[in-house]
Amino acid sequence: MELISSNKVSGGWHKRYTHTSQSTQCEMTFAIFLPEIVNEGQQVPVLYWLSGLTCSDENFMQKAGAFKKANELGIAIVAPDTSPRGEGVADDENGAYDFGLGAGFYVNATQAPYSQHYQMYDYVTEELPQLIETHFPVSPQKAISGHSMGGHGALIIGLRNPDAYTSISAFSPIVNPSNCPWGQKALTGYLGDDKQRWQQYDATELLSHYVSPTKRPILIEQGSSDQFLDEQLKPWVFEQAAEKAGYPITLNMHEGYDHSYFFISSFIEHHLEFHAHYMR
Amino acid sequence: MELISSNKVSGGWHKRYTHTSQSTQCEMTFAIFLPEIVNEGQQVPVLYWLSGLTCSDENFMQKAGAFKKANELGIAIVAPDTSPRGEGVADDENGAYDFGLGAGFYVNATQAPYSQHYQMYDYVTEELPQLIETHFPVSPQKAISGHSMGGHGALIIGLRNPDAYTSISAFSPIVNPSNCPWGQKALTGYLGDDKQRWQQYDATELLSHYVSPTKRPILIEQGSSDQFLDEQLKPWVFEQAAEKAGYPITLNMHEGYDHSYFFISSFIEHHLEFHAHYMR
Repeated sequence: MELISSNKVSGGWHKRYTHTSQSTQCEMTFAIFLPEIVNEGQQVPVLYWLSGLTCSDENFMQKAGAFKKANELGIAIVAPDTSPRGEGVADDENGAYDFGLGAGFYVNATQAPYSQHYQMYDYVTEELPQLIETHFPVSPQKAISGHSMGGHGALIIGLRNPDAYTSISAFSPIVNPSNCPWGQKALTGYLGDDKQRWQQYDATELLSHYVSPTKRPILIEQGSSDQFLDEQLKPWVFEQAAEKAGYPITLNMHEGYDHSYFFISSFIEHHLEFHAHYMR
Repeated sequence: MELISSNKVSGGWHKRYTHTSQSTQCEMTFAIFLPEIVNEGQQVPVLYWLSGLTCSDENFMQKAGAFKKANELGIAIVAPDTSPRGEGVADDENGAYDFGLGAGFYVNATQAPYSQHYQMYDYVTEELPQLIETHFPVSPQKAISGHSMGGHGALIIGLRNPDAYTSISAFSPIVNPSNCPWGQKALTGYLGDDKQRWQQYDATELLSHYVSPTKRPILIEQGSSDQFLDEQLKPWVFEQAAEKAGYPITLNMHEGYDHSYFFISSFIEHHLEFHAHYMR
Protein backbone atom coordinates (compact mmCIF):
# COMPACT_ATOMS: atom_id res chain seq x y z
CA MET A 1 0.00 0.00 0.00
CA GLU A 2 1.48 3.33 -1.05
CA LEU A 3 0.51 6.76 0.23
CA ILE A 4 -0.19 9.22 -2.61
CA SER A 5 -1.17 12.29 -0.63
CA SER A 6 -2.23 13.44 2.80
CA ASN A 7 -4.18 16.58 3.74
CA LYS A 8 -5.32 17.77 7.11
CA VAL A 9 -9.00 18.73 6.91
CA SER A 10 -11.62 19.71 9.49
CA GLY A 11 -9.44 18.42 12.30
CA GLY A 12 -8.94 15.01 10.67
CA TRP A 13 -6.99 13.66 7.73
CA HIS A 14 -7.74 12.91 4.09
CA LYS A 15 -5.33 10.38 2.60
CA ARG A 16 -5.07 8.66 -0.78
CA TYR A 17 -3.44 5.31 -1.35
CA THR A 18 -2.75 2.87 -4.15
CA HIS A 19 -2.40 -0.86 -3.75
CA THR A 20 -2.28 -3.95 -5.91
CA SER A 21 -5.67 -5.58 -5.86
CA GLN A 22 -6.19 -9.33 -5.91
CA SER A 23 -9.80 -8.94 -6.98
CA THR A 24 -9.31 -6.59 -9.90
CA GLN A 25 -5.77 -7.65 -10.81
CA CYS A 26 -4.54 -4.09 -11.12
CA GLU A 27 -3.45 -1.08 -9.08
CA MET A 28 -6.42 0.43 -7.28
CA THR A 29 -6.65 3.87 -5.71
CA PHE A 30 -8.80 4.73 -2.72
CA ALA A 31 -9.20 7.65 -0.34
CA ILE A 32 -9.87 7.62 3.39
CA PHE A 33 -10.95 10.30 5.82
CA LEU A 34 -9.88 9.71 9.41
CA PRO A 35 -11.40 11.85 12.17
CA GLU A 36 -9.11 13.37 14.77
CA ILE A 37 -10.44 11.04 17.47
CA VAL A 38 -8.16 8.29 16.08
CA ASN A 39 -5.25 10.29 17.54
CA GLU A 40 -6.58 9.33 20.96
CA GLY A 41 -6.21 5.67 20.10
CA GLN A 42 -9.90 5.18 19.44
CA GLN A 43 -11.15 2.80 16.75
CA VAL A 44 -13.80 4.39 14.55
CA PRO A 45 -16.59 2.93 12.41
CA VAL A 46 -16.36 3.28 8.62
CA LEU A 47 -18.80 4.60 6.06
CA TYR A 48 -18.02 3.29 2.58
CA TRP A 49 -18.97 5.76 -0.15
CA LEU A 50 -19.48 4.50 -3.72
CA SER A 51 -19.32 7.14 -6.44
CA GLY A 52 -21.20 7.45 -9.69
CA LEU A 53 -20.36 7.21 -13.38
CA THR A 54 -17.08 8.89 -14.47
CA CYS A 55 -15.99 9.48 -10.86
CA SER A 56 -12.84 8.39 -9.06
CA ASP A 57 -12.06 8.35 -5.34
CA GLU A 58 -11.67 12.14 -5.50
CA ASN A 59 -15.12 13.55 -6.33
CA PHE A 60 -16.81 12.87 -3.03
CA MET A 61 -13.77 13.82 -1.00
CA GLN A 62 -13.43 17.19 -2.74
CA LYS A 63 -17.05 18.17 -3.24
CA ALA A 64 -19.37 16.59 -0.68
CA GLY A 65 -18.43 18.78 2.28
CA ALA A 66 -18.67 15.78 4.61
CA PHE A 67 -15.61 16.12 6.82
CA LYS A 68 -16.71 18.59 9.47
CA LYS A 69 -19.67 16.41 10.42
CA ALA A 70 -17.74 13.14 10.03
CA ASN A 71 -15.09 14.50 12.38
CA GLU A 72 -17.72 15.55 14.91
CA LEU A 73 -19.36 12.13 14.74
CA GLY A 74 -16.02 10.31 14.84
CA ILE A 75 -16.51 8.22 11.72
CA ALA A 76 -14.08 7.35 8.94
CA ILE A 77 -15.12 7.52 5.28
CA VAL A 78 -13.59 5.32 2.59
CA ALA A 79 -14.09 6.10 -1.11
CA PRO A 80 -12.91 3.52 -3.64
CA ASP A 81 -12.51 4.14 -7.35
CA THR A 82 -15.45 3.27 -9.62
CA SER A 83 -13.66 0.70 -11.78
CA PRO A 84 -10.35 -1.00 -12.36
CA ARG A 85 -7.91 1.18 -14.32
CA GLY A 86 -4.57 1.10 -16.05
CA GLU A 87 -2.90 -0.45 -19.03
CA GLY A 88 -4.58 -3.65 -20.11
CA VAL A 89 -7.92 -2.87 -18.46
CA ALA A 90 -10.61 -3.12 -21.13
CA ASP A 91 -12.75 -0.02 -21.68
CA ASP A 92 -15.99 0.51 -23.56
CA GLU A 93 -15.37 -0.07 -27.28
CA ASN A 94 -16.33 3.50 -28.05
CA GLY A 95 -14.94 5.01 -24.86
CA ALA A 96 -18.45 5.80 -23.62
CA TYR A 97 -18.76 7.33 -20.14
CA ASP A 98 -21.35 4.81 -18.94
CA PHE A 99 -19.48 1.52 -19.40
CA GLY A 100 -15.93 0.33 -18.75
CA LEU A 101 -13.49 2.74 -17.12
CA GLY A 102 -15.21 4.82 -14.43
CA ALA A 103 -18.31 2.65 -14.73
CA GLY A 104 -17.69 -0.70 -13.04
CA PHE A 105 -21.23 -0.85 -11.62
CA TYR A 106 -19.97 -2.75 -8.55
CA VAL A 107 -20.50 -6.16 -10.17
CA ASN A 108 -18.27 -9.19 -10.75
CA ALA A 109 -18.10 -9.36 -14.53
CA THR A 110 -18.41 -12.76 -16.19
CA GLN A 111 -18.02 -11.66 -19.82
CA ALA A 112 -14.67 -11.40 -21.63
CA PRO A 113 -12.75 -9.16 -21.79
CA TYR A 114 -14.26 -7.50 -18.71
CA SER A 115 -14.18 -10.50 -16.41
CA GLN A 116 -10.41 -10.24 -16.03
CA HIS A 117 -10.41 -6.97 -14.07
CA TYR A 118 -14.01 -5.86 -13.43
CA GLN A 119 -14.53 -7.63 -10.11
CA MET A 120 -15.70 -4.56 -8.26
CA TYR A 121 -18.26 -6.37 -6.10
CA ASP A 122 -15.59 -8.54 -4.51
CA TYR A 123 -13.21 -5.62 -4.28
CA VAL A 124 -15.66 -3.37 -2.43
CA THR A 125 -17.28 -5.98 -0.19
CA GLU A 126 -14.25 -8.10 0.73
CA GLU A 127 -10.79 -6.98 -0.26
CA LEU A 128 -11.10 -3.28 0.53
CA PRO A 129 -12.70 -3.67 3.99
CA GLN A 130 -10.04 -6.24 4.90
CA LEU A 131 -7.32 -3.86 3.79
CA ILE A 132 -8.86 -0.97 5.70
CA GLU A 133 -9.34 -3.02 8.85
CA THR A 134 -5.75 -4.25 8.69
CA HIS A 135 -4.06 -0.90 8.17
CA PHE A 136 -6.21 1.74 9.89
CA PRO A 137 -7.57 2.24 13.41
CA VAL A 138 -11.12 1.28 12.52
CA SER A 139 -13.72 -0.87 14.21
CA PRO A 140 -15.63 -3.64 12.37
CA GLN A 141 -18.74 -1.41 12.17
CA LYS A 142 -19.48 -0.59 8.55
CA ALA A 143 -22.19 1.30 6.70
CA ILE A 144 -22.57 1.98 3.00
CA SER A 145 -23.75 4.86 0.85
CA GLY A 146 -23.30 6.17 -2.66
CA HIS A 147 -24.53 8.31 -5.53
CA SER A 148 -26.29 7.27 -8.75
CA MET A 149 -24.36 4.18 -9.97
CA GLY A 150 -22.81 4.23 -6.48
CA GLY A 151 -26.29 4.45 -4.95
CA HIS A 152 -27.09 1.27 -6.87
CA GLY A 153 -23.88 -0.22 -5.49
CA ALA A 154 -24.74 0.74 -1.91
CA LEU A 155 -28.25 -0.70 -2.17
CA ILE A 156 -27.25 -4.05 -3.66
CA ILE A 157 -24.28 -4.47 -1.33
CA GLY A 158 -26.30 -3.54 1.74
CA LEU A 159 -29.23 -5.79 0.79
CA ARG A 160 -26.98 -8.76 0.04
CA ASN A 161 -24.86 -8.36 3.18
CA PRO A 162 -27.18 -7.41 6.05
CA ASP A 163 -24.74 -8.82 8.59
CA ALA A 164 -21.88 -6.69 7.33
CA TYR A 165 -23.41 -3.22 7.00
CA THR A 166 -25.47 -1.61 9.76
CA SER A 167 -27.24 0.86 7.48
CA ILE A 168 -27.69 1.68 3.81
CA SER A 169 -28.20 5.00 2.10
CA ALA A 170 -28.14 6.46 -1.38
CA PHE A 171 -28.41 9.72 -3.28
CA SER A 172 -30.19 9.56 -6.65
CA PRO A 173 -29.60 5.80 -6.99
CA ILE A 174 -30.15 3.57 -9.99
CA VAL A 175 -32.64 1.33 -8.17
CA ASN A 176 -33.64 -0.99 -10.98
CA PRO A 177 -30.77 -1.34 -13.46
CA SER A 178 -32.52 -4.20 -15.29
CA ASN A 179 -35.07 -1.66 -16.48
CA CYS A 180 -33.12 1.46 -17.44
CA PRO A 181 -30.68 2.23 -20.25
CA TRP A 182 -27.57 2.69 -18.07
CA GLY A 183 -28.21 -0.54 -16.22
CA GLN A 184 -29.16 -2.63 -19.23
CA LYS A 185 -26.01 -1.60 -21.09
CA ALA A 186 -23.80 -2.34 -18.09
CA LEU A 187 -25.39 -5.62 -17.05
CA THR A 188 -25.40 -6.91 -20.61
CA GLY A 189 -21.77 -5.96 -21.07
CA TYR A 190 -20.50 -7.35 -17.78
CA LEU A 191 -22.87 -10.31 -17.25
CA GLY A 192 -24.28 -11.22 -20.66
CA ASP A 193 -27.85 -11.40 -21.93
CA ASP A 194 -29.27 -13.80 -19.35
CA LYS A 195 -31.43 -11.54 -17.19
CA GLN A 196 -31.54 -14.14 -14.43
CA ARG A 197 -27.93 -13.25 -13.70
CA TRP A 198 -28.81 -9.59 -13.39
CA GLN A 199 -31.11 -10.05 -10.42
CA GLN A 200 -28.32 -10.29 -7.84
CA TYR A 201 -27.21 -6.81 -8.93
CA ASP A 202 -30.63 -5.19 -9.07
CA ALA A 203 -31.79 -3.55 -5.82
CA THR A 204 -35.47 -3.73 -6.72
CA GLU A 205 -35.19 -7.45 -7.54
CA LEU A 206 -33.23 -8.11 -4.36
CA LEU A 207 -35.79 -6.28 -2.27
CA SER A 208 -38.67 -8.13 -3.93
CA HIS A 209 -37.10 -11.45 -2.99
CA TYR A 210 -35.68 -10.41 0.37
CA VAL A 211 -35.73 -13.23 2.93
CA SER A 212 -33.24 -12.36 5.71
CA PRO A 213 -34.83 -11.56 9.09
CA THR A 214 -32.33 -8.70 9.41
CA LYS A 215 -33.71 -5.61 7.75
CA ARG A 216 -31.17 -2.81 7.81
CA PRO A 217 -32.52 0.74 7.57
CA ILE A 218 -32.47 2.26 4.09
CA LEU A 219 -32.44 6.02 3.47
CA ILE A 220 -32.69 7.56 -0.03
CA GLU A 221 -32.52 11.21 -1.15
CA GLN A 222 -33.74 12.20 -4.59
CA GLY A 223 -33.96 15.59 -6.29
CA SER A 224 -37.12 16.33 -8.25
CA SER A 225 -35.18 18.25 -10.92
CA ASP A 226 -32.69 15.44 -11.48
CA GLN A 227 -32.18 15.21 -15.23
CA PHE A 228 -32.02 11.40 -15.00
CA LEU A 229 -35.02 10.90 -12.77
CA ASP A 230 -37.64 9.56 -15.20
CA GLU A 231 -35.44 7.57 -17.55
CA GLN A 232 -32.71 6.08 -15.35
CA LEU A 233 -33.55 6.40 -11.66
CA LYS A 234 -37.28 6.01 -10.95
CA PRO A 235 -36.97 5.58 -7.18
CA TRP A 236 -40.73 4.99 -6.91
CA VAL A 237 -40.18 1.54 -8.43
CA PHE A 238 -38.00 0.68 -5.44
CA GLU A 239 -40.46 2.29 -3.06
CA GLN A 240 -43.30 0.17 -4.45
CA ALA A 241 -41.23 -3.00 -4.19
CA ALA A 242 -40.39 -2.12 -0.58
CA GLU A 243 -44.03 -1.62 0.26
CA LYS A 244 -44.95 -4.91 -1.35
CA ALA A 245 -42.14 -6.71 0.48
CA GLY A 246 -42.98 -5.13 3.81
CA TYR A 247 -39.47 -3.65 4.04
CA PRO A 248 -39.59 -0.14 5.49
CA ILE A 249 -37.49 2.41 3.61
CA THR A 250 -37.30 6.20 3.69
CA LEU A 251 -37.36 8.03 0.35
CA ASN A 252 -37.04 11.81 0.61
CA MET A 253 -37.90 13.79 -2.51
CA HIS A 254 -36.39 17.30 -2.71
CA GLU A 255 -38.04 19.94 -4.84
CA GLY A 256 -35.69 21.64 -7.31
CA TYR A 257 -32.51 19.65 -6.64
CA ASP A 258 -30.60 18.02 -9.49
CA HIS A 259 -28.13 15.14 -9.95
CA SER A 260 -24.96 17.07 -9.01
CA TYR A 261 -22.71 17.23 -5.97
CA PHE A 262 -24.54 20.41 -5.04
CA PHE A 263 -27.40 18.09 -4.12
CA ILE A 264 -25.21 15.63 -2.24
CA SER A 265 -23.48 18.38 -0.26
CA SER A 266 -26.88 19.75 0.75
CA PHE A 267 -27.95 16.56 2.53
CA ILE A 268 -24.78 14.58 3.27
CA GLU A 269 -24.69 15.60 6.93
CA HIS A 270 -28.08 14.01 7.48
CA HIS A 271 -26.78 10.75 6.01
CA LEU A 272 -23.67 10.84 8.18
CA GLU A 273 -25.85 11.24 11.27
CA PHE A 274 -28.10 8.41 10.08
CA HIS A 275 -25.20 6.01 9.67
CA ALA A 276 -23.39 7.14 12.83
CA HIS A 277 -26.54 6.36 14.80
CA TYR A 278 -26.64 2.75 13.60
CA MET A 279 -22.88 2.16 13.68
CA ARG A 280 -22.66 3.08 17.35
CA MET B 1 -25.74 38.42 -19.32
CA GLU B 2 -26.35 34.77 -20.11
CA LEU B 3 -27.18 32.00 -17.63
CA ILE B 4 -24.92 28.95 -18.06
CA SER B 5 -26.23 26.74 -15.29
CA SER B 6 -28.30 26.76 -12.14
CA ASN B 7 -28.23 24.33 -9.21
CA LYS B 8 -30.23 24.31 -6.05
CA VAL B 9 -27.88 23.86 -3.09
CA SER B 10 -28.31 24.02 0.69
CA GLY B 11 -31.66 25.75 0.30
CA GLY B 12 -30.28 28.45 -2.00
CA TRP B 13 -29.08 28.61 -5.59
CA HIS B 14 -25.73 28.38 -7.35
CA LYS B 15 -25.77 30.03 -10.77
CA ARG B 16 -23.13 30.66 -13.43
CA TYR B 17 -23.29 33.48 -15.96
CA THR B 18 -21.25 34.89 -18.82
CA HIS B 19 -21.28 38.50 -19.91
CA THR B 20 -19.27 40.80 -22.16
CA SER B 21 -16.95 42.85 -19.99
CA GLN B 22 -16.07 46.47 -20.72
CA SER B 23 -13.01 46.26 -18.47
CA THR B 24 -11.42 43.14 -19.88
CA GLN B 25 -12.83 43.40 -23.41
CA CYS B 26 -13.86 39.77 -23.50
CA GLU B 27 -16.51 37.33 -22.29
CA MET B 28 -16.21 36.82 -18.54
CA THR B 29 -17.74 34.03 -16.47
CA PHE B 30 -18.76 34.37 -12.84
CA ALA B 31 -20.72 32.32 -10.32
CA ILE B 32 -23.12 33.50 -7.65
CA PHE B 33 -24.66 31.79 -4.64
CA LEU B 34 -27.99 33.24 -3.55
CA PRO B 35 -29.42 32.21 -0.17
CA GLU B 36 -33.05 31.20 0.04
CA ILE B 37 -33.96 34.36 1.96
CA VAL B 38 -33.97 36.25 -1.37
CA ASN B 39 -37.20 34.38 -2.15
CA GLU B 40 -38.82 36.44 0.58
CA GLY B 41 -37.91 39.62 -1.25
CA GLN B 42 -34.99 40.39 1.02
CA GLN B 43 -31.81 42.05 -0.26
CA VAL B 44 -28.69 40.28 0.92
CA PRO B 45 -25.09 41.44 1.38
CA VAL B 46 -22.40 40.00 -0.89
CA LEU B 47 -19.09 38.36 -0.16
CA TYR B 48 -16.75 38.49 -3.17
CA TRP B 49 -14.40 35.52 -3.33
CA LEU B 50 -11.20 35.75 -5.37
CA SER B 51 -9.59 32.46 -6.31
CA GLY B 52 -5.96 31.50 -6.70
CA LEU B 53 -3.66 30.56 -9.56
CA THR B 54 -5.13 28.21 -12.21
CA CYS B 55 -8.65 28.52 -10.78
CA SER B 56 -11.87 29.63 -12.42
CA ASP B 57 -15.19 30.63 -10.87
CA GLU B 58 -15.82 26.93 -10.18
CA ASN B 59 -13.21 25.83 -7.64
CA PHE B 60 -14.55 27.65 -4.62
CA MET B 61 -18.16 26.91 -5.48
CA GLN B 62 -17.51 23.16 -5.80
CA LYS B 63 -14.97 22.61 -3.04
CA ALA B 64 -15.25 25.15 -0.25
CA GLY B 65 -18.38 23.79 1.40
CA ALA B 66 -19.59 27.33 2.08
CA PHE B 67 -23.26 27.21 1.14
CA LYS B 68 -24.92 25.79 4.23
CA LYS B 69 -23.47 28.52 6.42
CA ALA B 70 -23.96 31.25 3.78
CA ASN B 71 -27.60 30.25 3.52
CA GLU B 72 -28.01 30.34 7.30
CA LEU B 73 -26.37 33.76 7.47
CA GLY B 74 -28.31 35.06 4.48
CA ILE B 75 -25.35 36.21 2.42
CA ALA B 76 -24.64 35.92 -1.29
CA ILE B 77 -21.22 34.86 -2.57
CA VAL B 78 -19.83 35.97 -5.94
CA ALA B 79 -16.81 34.24 -7.48
CA PRO B 80 -15.29 35.81 -10.60
CA ASP B 81 -12.80 34.12 -12.89
CA THR B 82 -9.08 34.70 -12.22
CA SER B 83 -8.23 36.27 -15.58
CA PRO B 84 -9.65 37.27 -18.93
CA ARG B 85 -10.00 34.32 -21.30
CA GLY B 86 -10.81 33.44 -24.88
CA GLU B 87 -9.36 33.85 -28.34
CA GLY B 88 -7.05 36.81 -28.60
CA VAL B 89 -6.30 36.98 -24.87
CA ALA B 90 -2.51 36.83 -24.43
CA ASP B 91 -1.17 34.03 -22.25
CA ASP B 92 2.25 33.44 -20.74
CA GLU B 93 4.78 32.85 -23.54
CA ASN B 94 5.48 29.37 -22.25
CA GLY B 95 1.98 28.64 -21.02
CA ALA B 96 3.14 28.73 -17.39
CA TYR B 97 0.47 28.30 -14.68
CA ASP B 98 1.55 31.39 -12.74
CA PHE B 99 1.15 34.12 -15.37
CA GLY B 100 -1.41 34.95 -18.02
CA LEU B 101 -4.54 32.81 -18.24
CA GLY B 102 -5.78 31.81 -14.79
CA ALA B 103 -3.30 34.22 -13.21
CA GLY B 104 -4.52 37.80 -13.64
CA PHE B 105 -3.34 38.81 -10.15
CA TYR B 106 -6.22 41.32 -9.87
CA VAL B 107 -4.18 44.19 -11.40
CA ASN B 108 -4.74 46.59 -14.30
CA ALA B 109 -1.93 45.65 -16.66
CA THR B 110 -0.01 48.45 -18.35
CA GLN B 111 2.34 46.34 -20.47
CA ALA B 112 1.57 45.11 -23.98
CA PRO B 113 0.17 42.67 -24.92
CA TYR B 114 -1.46 42.16 -21.51
CA SER B 115 -2.83 45.67 -21.07
CA GLN B 116 -5.54 45.01 -23.65
CA HIS B 117 -7.49 42.46 -21.58
CA TYR B 118 -5.86 42.07 -18.17
CA GLN B 119 -7.80 44.78 -16.32
CA MET B 120 -8.91 42.55 -13.48
CA TYR B 121 -8.67 45.22 -10.78
CA ASP B 122 -11.28 47.38 -12.50
CA TYR B 123 -13.36 44.34 -13.34
CA VAL B 124 -13.53 43.07 -9.77
CA THR B 125 -13.84 46.42 -7.97
CA GLU B 126 -16.18 48.27 -10.33
CA GLU B 127 -17.76 46.43 -13.23
CA LEU B 128 -18.67 43.21 -11.49
CA PRO B 129 -20.25 44.78 -8.36
CA GLN B 130 -22.28 47.11 -10.59
CA LEU B 131 -23.47 44.17 -12.62
CA ILE B 132 -24.35 42.18 -9.51
CA GLU B 133 -26.18 45.07 -7.89
CA THR B 134 -28.15 45.70 -11.08
CA HIS B 135 -29.29 42.14 -11.72
CA PHE B 136 -29.59 40.43 -8.33
CA PRO B 137 -31.49 41.13 -5.09
CA VAL B 138 -28.42 42.29 -3.18
CA SER B 139 -27.77 45.16 -0.81
CA PRO B 140 -24.77 47.52 -1.26
CA GLN B 141 -22.95 45.79 1.64
CA LYS B 142 -19.84 44.07 0.33
CA ALA B 143 -16.97 42.13 1.84
CA ILE B 144 -14.00 40.48 0.18
CA SER B 145 -12.01 37.30 0.65
CA GLY B 146 -9.81 34.99 -1.35
CA HIS B 147 -7.14 32.31 -1.49
CA SER B 148 -3.44 32.61 -2.32
CA MET B 149 -3.30 34.94 -5.39
CA GLY B 150 -6.93 35.69 -4.52
CA GLY B 151 -5.95 36.39 -0.92
CA HIS B 152 -3.53 38.97 -2.32
CA GLY B 153 -6.42 40.34 -4.39
CA ALA B 154 -8.71 40.56 -1.38
CA LEU B 155 -6.10 42.34 0.73
CA ILE B 156 -5.15 44.95 -1.86
CA ILE B 157 -8.75 45.60 -2.89
CA GLY B 158 -9.92 45.87 0.71
CA LEU B 159 -7.04 48.13 1.75
CA ARG B 160 -7.49 50.44 -1.25
CA ASN B 161 -11.29 50.66 -0.91
CA PRO B 162 -12.12 50.88 2.78
CA ASP B 163 -15.41 52.61 2.01
CA ALA B 164 -16.56 49.85 -0.32
CA TYR B 165 -15.82 46.66 1.66
CA THR B 166 -16.82 46.21 5.28
CA SER B 167 -14.30 43.47 6.02
CA ILE B 168 -11.33 41.70 4.46
CA SER B 169 -10.15 38.14 4.81
CA ALA B 170 -7.75 35.74 3.16
CA PHE B 171 -6.58 32.15 3.17
CA SER B 172 -2.87 31.58 2.53
CA PRO B 173 -2.47 34.98 0.80
CA ILE B 174 0.47 36.31 -1.17
CA VAL B 175 0.95 39.29 1.15
CA ASN B 176 4.06 40.83 -0.38
CA PRO B 177 4.19 40.06 -4.12
CA SER B 178 7.09 42.51 -4.68
CA ASN B 179 9.25 40.10 -2.70
CA CYS B 180 8.31 36.60 -3.86
CA PRO B 181 8.81 34.73 -7.13
CA TRP B 182 5.11 34.49 -8.09
CA GLY B 183 4.55 38.18 -7.45
CA GLN B 184 7.73 39.42 -9.08
CA LYS B 185 7.01 37.49 -12.25
CA ALA B 186 3.42 38.75 -12.40
CA LEU B 187 4.08 42.38 -11.51
CA THR B 188 6.99 42.60 -13.96
CA GLY B 189 4.90 41.06 -16.72
CA TYR B 190 1.78 43.14 -16.16
CA LEU B 191 3.29 46.43 -14.89
CA GLY B 192 6.90 46.51 -16.06
CA ASP B 193 10.16 46.83 -14.14
CA ASP B 194 9.43 50.03 -12.23
CA LYS B 195 8.83 48.79 -8.69
CA GLN B 196 7.15 52.05 -7.73
CA ARG B 197 4.17 50.93 -9.79
CA TRP B 198 3.99 47.64 -7.92
CA GLN B 199 3.26 49.25 -4.57
CA GLN B 200 -0.43 49.84 -5.26
CA TYR B 201 -0.78 46.06 -5.74
CA ASP B 202 1.27 44.94 -2.76
CA ALA B 203 -0.69 44.48 0.47
CA THR B 204 2.35 44.89 2.70
CA GLU B 205 3.30 48.15 0.98
CA LEU B 206 -0.27 49.41 1.14
CA LEU B 207 -0.50 48.64 4.81
CA SER B 208 2.85 50.31 5.52
CA HIS B 209 1.60 53.52 3.92
CA TYR B 210 -2.01 53.30 5.09
CA VAL B 211 -3.55 56.71 5.82
CA SER B 212 -7.35 56.32 5.78
CA PRO B 213 -9.02 56.75 9.19
CA THR B 214 -11.25 53.77 8.30
CA LYS B 215 -9.51 50.56 9.26
CA ARG B 216 -11.55 47.57 8.16
CA PRO B 217 -11.01 44.33 10.05
CA ILE B 218 -8.60 41.89 8.43
CA LEU B 219 -8.65 38.13 9.11
CA ILE B 220 -6.05 35.73 7.70
CA GLU B 221 -5.80 31.92 7.95
CA GLN B 222 -2.56 30.16 7.16
CA GLY B 223 -1.58 26.50 7.32
CA SER B 224 1.81 25.65 8.79
CA SER B 225 2.36 22.80 6.29
CA ASP B 226 1.59 24.96 3.27
CA GLN B 227 4.16 24.04 0.63
CA PHE B 228 4.40 27.70 -0.44
CA LEU B 229 4.69 29.23 3.01
CA ASP B 230 8.36 30.17 3.19
CA GLU B 231 9.05 31.08 -0.42
CA GLN B 232 5.84 32.74 -1.62
CA LEU B 233 3.52 33.61 1.25
CA LYS B 234 5.39 34.70 4.39
CA PRO B 235 2.39 36.13 6.24
CA TRP B 236 4.64 37.29 9.10
CA VAL B 237 5.92 40.05 6.79
CA PHE B 238 2.38 41.42 6.63
CA GLU B 239 1.91 40.92 10.35
CA GLN B 240 5.05 42.92 11.10
CA ALA B 241 3.97 45.72 8.77
CA ALA B 242 0.57 45.80 10.48
CA GLU B 243 2.16 46.07 13.89
CA LYS B 244 4.42 48.88 12.73
CA ALA B 245 1.49 50.69 11.12
CA GLY B 246 -0.73 50.24 14.17
CA TYR B 247 -3.33 48.44 12.04
CA PRO B 248 -4.82 45.54 13.98
CA ILE B 249 -5.06 42.29 12.01
CA THR B 250 -5.77 38.69 12.99
CA LEU B 251 -3.43 36.01 11.62
CA ASN B 252 -4.36 32.45 12.59
CA MET B 253 -1.70 29.81 12.01
CA HIS B 254 -2.99 26.22 11.74
CA GLU B 255 -0.70 23.34 12.50
CA GLY B 256 -0.52 20.70 9.77
CA TYR B 257 -2.80 22.33 7.17
CA ASP B 258 -1.61 22.81 3.58
CA HIS B 259 -2.43 25.07 0.61
CA SER B 260 -5.42 23.08 -0.69
CA TYR B 261 -9.18 23.49 -0.59
CA PHE B 262 -9.16 20.97 2.25
CA PHE B 263 -7.72 23.84 4.31
CA ILE B 264 -10.21 26.40 3.02
CA SER B 265 -13.19 24.13 3.65
CA SER B 266 -11.99 23.58 7.22
CA PHE B 267 -12.24 27.27 8.15
CA ILE B 268 -14.55 28.91 5.62
CA GLU B 269 -17.52 28.98 7.98
CA HIS B 270 -15.57 31.10 10.43
CA HIS B 271 -14.83 33.61 7.64
CA LEU B 272 -18.46 33.73 6.56
CA GLU B 273 -19.48 34.51 10.14
CA PHE B 274 -16.77 37.16 10.37
CA HIS B 275 -17.97 38.93 7.21
CA ALA B 276 -21.68 38.51 8.01
CA HIS B 277 -21.06 40.23 11.34
CA TYR B 278 -19.60 43.33 9.68
CA MET B 279 -21.97 43.40 6.70
CA ARG B 280 -25.04 43.55 8.94
